[in-house]
Amino acid sequence: MTDKPSILIVGAGAIGSFYGAILKRAGCSVSTVLRSEYEAVKENGIRISSPLGDLSYRPDQVYRDGDSPQSPPDYLILCVKVLPGTDRAQLVRPWMGPNTRLVLIENGLDIERELAEAYPDNPLISCLAFIAASRTEPGVVEHKAYGKLVMGSYPEGISEDCRTLSDLFIEGGIKVDLTEAVVGERWRKCLWNTPFNPLSVIANGADTRTILDTEGGEALIRAMIREVMAVAEAEGYPMEESLIEQNIEGTRKMPPYKNSMALDYLNDRPIERDAVLGNVVALAERHGIAVPHLNTVLVTLKMRASLEGRA
Amino acid sequence: MTDKPSILIVGAGAIGSFYGAILKRAGCSVSTVLRSEYEAVKENGIRISSPLGDLSYRPDQVYRDGDSPQSPPDYLILCVKVLPGTDRAQLVRPWMGPNTRLVLIENGLDIERELAEAYPDNPLISCLAFIAASRTEPGVVEHKAYGKLVMGSYPEGISEDCRTLSDLFIEGGIKVDLTEAVVGERWRKCLWNTPFNPLSVIANGADTRTILDTEGGEALIRAMIREVMAVAEAEGYPMEESLIEQNIEGTRKMPPYKNSMALDYLNDRPIERDAVLGNVVALAERHGIAVPHLNTVLVTLKMRASLEGRA
Repeated sequence: MTDKPSILIVGAGAIGSFYGAILKRAGCSVSTVLRSEYEAVKENGIRISSPLGDLSYRPDQVYRDGDSPQSPPDYLILCVKVLPGTDRAQLVRPWMGPNTRLVLIENGLDIERELAEAYPDNPLISCLAFIAASRTEPGVVEHKAYGKLVMGSYPEGISEDCRTLSDLFIEGGIKVDLTEAVVGERWRKCLWNTPFNPLSVIANGADTRTILDTEGGEALIRAMIREVMAVAEAEGYPMEESLIEQNIEGTRKMPPYKNSMALDYLNDRPIERDAVLGNVVALAERHGIAVPHLNTVLVTLKMRASLEGRA
Repeated sequence: MTDKPSILIVGAGAIGSFYGAILKRAGCSVSTVLRSEYEAVKENGIRISSPLGDLSYRPDQVYRDGDSPQSPPDYLILCVKVLPGTDRAQLVRPWMGPNTRLVLIENGLDIERELAEAYPDNPLISCLAFIAASRTEPGVVEHKAYGKLVMGSYPEGISEDCRTLSDLFIEGGIKVDLTEAVVGERWRKCLWNTPFNPLSVIANGADTRTILDTEGGEALIRAMIREVMAVAEAEGYPMEESLIEQNIEGTRKMPPYKNSMALDYLNDRPIERDAVLGNVVALAERHGIAVPHLNTVLVTLKMRASLEGRA
C-alpha cells in the first residue's frame, strides 16, 4: 500500500495516458475513465513507447463513462478535448468527491471558468502540456519528445495541492514549472496557438514553413499575434512586444511542423476551435477590441463546420 | 457575304462560346482560338442549349493557339480566365491587327491595365457578363439563364466601336447596358464577388445561404463589402452605403447558390484569385487602406496554393 494520492485520469488519450504513466512511476494509484478505448485498455493496459523508456502500465481501475467509482480520487485529471459538444462539468460529476482536486491538462483560453463555477469548493489546478505525443492505436501511445507541464492554481497562486502534484510529476520524471499566474501562461502559449493552429486548418493543413513563407503569411501571423496580445492586455496580462519576434524566430528555427489542430483537421477529428480561437474573439468583443484577422478565421471555420453539419 | 464586322473569340469556354453564338446570330463571321477543346470544336462545332433556343454553330475558322490568322479580326473578344500564369497580352498578339478592337468579357478588377499598356493604339472595350452558363463537355455549353452585358470603353466613355458591338449583341438577342464608367461597374460587381467568391472557397465551397447564416457570417460579409467600398472610393468610385444592404438582401432572396469560383475550386480548376481579390488588396495597399478581412482571406488562399504547388 502507498500513502501517495490516488489519481483518476478522465480522457486517457495520448496526453492523459502519458501523464498517468508519469504518476504511476511516482508510485500513485492511477485509474482511468475511458470511452472508445475502454475494451483495449481493459484487455492490454496502456502501452507507451517513450525516450524515457517503456512507460506501459495497467491502470489500477479501468472505468467506463457511466460507471460508479469505488471512491472519489484525490486528484481528478481531466484531459479530454475542449469541444462545444462536450459538457466537461457533467463528465467529471460522478467521480468528484468533496476533497477531490480537479486538474486540467488541456489546451486553450478561458477553459477553466465553467469548471470553477460548477465545483466552487474543489481546488482547481490548471496545466499546460508542452509535449509531442500521439495515440497510434487504441491504448497505444507514442511519446516523441518533451513533456514539461506549466502548472498553477486557478485563477492564480500556487496552492499546497499544486506543489504536492508537481512533486509527484517531477518524481515520475518530467519537468514542471509552477506559476503564480497560470492564466497569463495560457495567454503566452496562445500567442502562438491562436494564430498558427486555426490558420493551418483553413489553409488545408499547411505547416509552419508554408504559413510563414507564403507571400503575406508572416505579416498575417504578426497581425494575429498582435490581436491576441491586445486581448491579453485587456484581460490583465500585458505581454512584451518582443514576444512577437520571438514567436516568429522560434518557429523559423523549427523544422516545418504541422500542429495538432492541423493533424486533427486532416484526420477528420474535431478541432478545439473555441478553446483556442473562439474564446479569444469572445473576450475581444466583451472588451470592444477589434480582431478582424482572428474573426475572419473564426467565422470561416464556423462556415466549414456548418457545411459539414457540425457545431 | 456580309458587311458585318469579323469576330475572333479567344478562349471559347462557356462565356466565349455563348457570346460568339449571339454574334453569329447577328450575322457576323465568328472564328475561335482554342486550346484543349480544339479537336472537339473542329469536328463538331460548338453546341449550346439555351432558353433562347438552340444556339449551336460552326465557327467560320477554328484556330489553335500558335496558328497564324488569315487576317486580323475587327473585334477580338478575349474570354480566358484571368490567372497569374496566363500572359493575356502575349496570348492575343498573333491575332491583333492595327485596327482590331480588343474586347474583354472577363471578371475582376484592374484587369484591363496590362492590355491597355500592351496595345495603346487599339480601342479597348471592357465588358461584364451577367450569365449562368457552364461547359458540360468539350465544345458543349449549357446556357441556363441571363446573359446581359455591361459594356463601356476603357478607361471610360462609350466609343462608336462600342456602340456598334453593342448593337450586334442586341440584334443577336441579349441585353446590353452601355456605361460611361465601366470601371465603376466592375467595382459595383466586385462588391459582391470580392467578398463572396473567395470566402466560399476558403469555407470549402460553402453556398450563399451557409455563408450568411453561419454565426458571424453576415457581419463578416458586411465588413468585407465595406473594405471593398473604401478602396473603390479611393480609386474614384464612391458607392452608396445602401449597396451593402442591397447586396445582402438580394443574396438572401436567391436560392442557396454556389458561385463560379466555388465551383472552380470544388472541381480542381484554377481560381481567379488575383482578378477578384488580390488586385483589390494591392490597390488598398497603394492607398494605405487597411483591409484586414480581405487580406486574411487572400493570404489563406495563397497558403493553400503554395501547399498545392501552384502560383
